[in-house]
Amino acid sequence: MVTRPKTSPPRADAAGIEEGSVFTPKFDADGLLPVVVTSARTGQVLMLAHMNQEALARTIETGQAQFWSRSRKRLWRKGEESGNTMRVVELRADCDQDALWLKVEMGGAEACCHTGRKSCFYRAVPIGKGAAAGGALTFVEAEGSFDPKTVYGHARAAKGTLKTQD
Amino acid sequence: MVTRPKTSPPRADAAGIEEGSVFTPKFDADGLLPVVVTSARTGQVLMLAHMNQEALARTIETGQAQFWSRSRKRLWRKGEESGNTMRVVELRADCDQDALWLKVEMGGAEACCHTGRKSCFYRAVPIGKGAAAGGALTFVEAEGSFDPKTVYGHARAAKGTLKTQD
Repeated sequence: MVTRPKTSPPRADAAGIEEGSVFTPKFDADGLLPVVVTSARTGQVLMLAHMNQEALARTIETGQAQFWSRSRKRLWRKGEESGNTMRVVELRADCDQDALWLKVEMGGAEACCHTGRKSCFYRAVPIGKGAAAGGALTFVEAEGSFDPKTVYGHARAAKGTLKTQD
Repeated sequence: MVTRPKTSPPRADAAGIEEGSVFTPKFDADGLLPVVVTSARTGQVLMLAHMNQEALARTIETGQAQFWSRSRKRLWRKGEESGNTMRVVELRADCDQDALWLKVEMGGAEACCHTGRKSCFYRAVPIGKGAAAGGALTFVEAEGSFDPKTVYGHARAAKGTLKTQD
């Protein structure tokens, strides 16, 4: 196992951060980085999650996606309970290294969302004149690929309160 | 123009937020929502940006992507300076409505990043045993599609300090 520094390495200036090849991720005030997760197979955006330094280091070392669960306040290996694991195909950093893009190959039911759906982004927001926040969402992916109640095995899942349970 | 409420509408319980069709986006403590932006044409993740309530309302009304620039602390219509505009093809909300996925058709040079590249995610992070934060990034998209110095017309652009200038 590699040594994990307690603090981030010092960052270069803006030009170095954007045009250099040294990975110096910038965590926010809570010590987190937003991570866009997409399916390497379908290209679909599966979820937006967060990593702290430990989750990022473990993801890099193991090639299995791990995150920081903000609701449970602990490290979370995606699929540890549901079997819907994420093998890292590619990890990318953005220009100022404060966001990541993770392309993954999913295990299990290939369903990312705790509601049982493949993607957490299963509803569309209406766009155009007359539409506004408060408008009716359209279900783009209505049906789940697994039954959260069965998979997670307790009542809270059925109530949809388990975003980060998986 | 529709009336924009000063505050978010009241939110339902978790089941309502996740399985309902009422759009009640949850902004963070800074009043922002993270937005994953992908190209409707290529499927590529272009950037991770943020919207406040006003940027979201304007995006919905006009069908042109607008964001909140955290560095400049003002609303920012993508492409207002560079011409690299973003027409909204689809907007999706995630399960607990605290993140958005915006599929766009780009105008101009079809390049999203202020560095001139199509995507802000132009470097890959090494994965696997022995790799760690601090490892060498690989340029996946090395060359820009436009010259930021010319497009933005002042010296800061060349120094790469203009992430949200566009």
